[in-house]
Amino acid sequence: MNPLDGLIEALKRLPGVGQKSAQRMAYHLLQHDRDGARSLAAALQAAAEQVGHCQRCHTFSESALCDICADTSRDASLLCVVESPADQAALERSNSYKGYYFVLLGRVSPLDGVGVHQIGAAELLARAAEAGVAEVILATSFTAEGEATAHVLGEALRSRGIRATRLARGVPVGSELEYVDLGTIAHALVDRR
Amino acid sequence: MNPLDGLIEALKRLPGVGQKSAQRMAYHLLQHDRDGARSLAAALQAAAEQVGHCQRCHTFSESALCDICADTSRDASLLCVVESPADQAALERSNSYKGYYFVLLGRVSPLDGVGVHQIGAAELLARAAEAGVAEVILATSFTAEGEATAHVLGEALRSRGIRATRLARGVPVGSELEYVDLGTIAHALVDRR
Ligand SMILES: [Zn+2]
Ligand SMILES: [Zn+2]
Repeated sequence: MNPLDGLIEALKRLPGVGQKSAQRMAYHLLQHDRDGARSLAAALQAAAEQVGHCQRCHTFSESALCDICADTSRDASLLCVVESPADQAALERSNSYKGYYFVLLGRVSPLDGVGVHQIGAAELLARAAEAGVAEVILATSFTAEGEATAHVLGEALRSRGIRATRLARGVPVGSELEYVDLGTIAHALVDRR
Repeated sequence: MNPLDGLIEALKRLPGVGQKSAQRMAYHLLQHDRDGARSLAAALQAAAEQVGHCQRCHTFSESALCDICADTSRDASLLCVVESPADQAALERSNSYKGYYFVLLGRVSPLDGVGVHQIGAAELLARAAEAGVAEVILATSFTAEGEATAHVLGEALRSRGIRATRLARGVPVGSELEYVDLGTIAHALVDRR
């Protein structure tokens, strides 16, 4: 494959990018923005090599502890459980939560053979059992799989005497947290049950 | 800037990619497809370094002569003038043209100070004057700037005794050639005037 076709094929691995968009992107970069192509190559390489996971909350981080886990000024009594780093970022942007996070490795999906063990439930239970944690807020998506995940984790936490709450239903049912507007997220945090 | 934010910024240089899409792409690559991120980095690097321009027709090529110019079985009596490698690729996909090409460096745009000299008109006139060229097909876009480009080039060619034709108006007025369906392109080639 020649380099131009190779670039078009590689661009098609981006989510939401089909043949036409990939062609448009490749031609644009080669004709008008080769510096942009080189910057993007370097940024992809750097991110793929340097971005690991925070050993405490499992979100993306290039150091052993992410900025949030390393911030001792946050409220250690609150632990918020999300499905992905993208969902965590959405909560942070809402500016209405000052506790810590725990990022799951996805959500339970019986049809795909993904159970609580695969998403890091054991690590969550250990983290939630640490001294000082008074409440675990389950902020998984309000989809069938997200609800099932929240249900299973809530049961497990409560059976260990740990208080578990759920984001309020201000979040539109059937939607992914990552794409919800910030006001709705803020409202749902206040109304957690 | 941390590597994740750096990646999001770099992705925003792709045409049609805003903040939200860039975030979605970055999170997707880091969470589910790091191999894809590395492949894309390598493809961008390879394309930016290796893809130059054919010295004869000026389209993208990693060798001195592109595959089409190097193909001696094509019809040397026909020379088709397009605005960009993307437009040339669209014509090739229509499978209805077997001559050679000349790719301009854009189109005349008086408002932006782009005249015929800036788009490679001198090189085109030299190429069109070569022995064996019987007709130059002006396949610039059917936009105001593309029409102006075709008009100026047509005058210059005819004043040198070279036959210049224009794609037929099967191509919808106001549209970019790159996005026209292939049947329309084929029809417009047959009906060239
Ligand atoms: Zn962390
Ligand atoms: Zn060529």
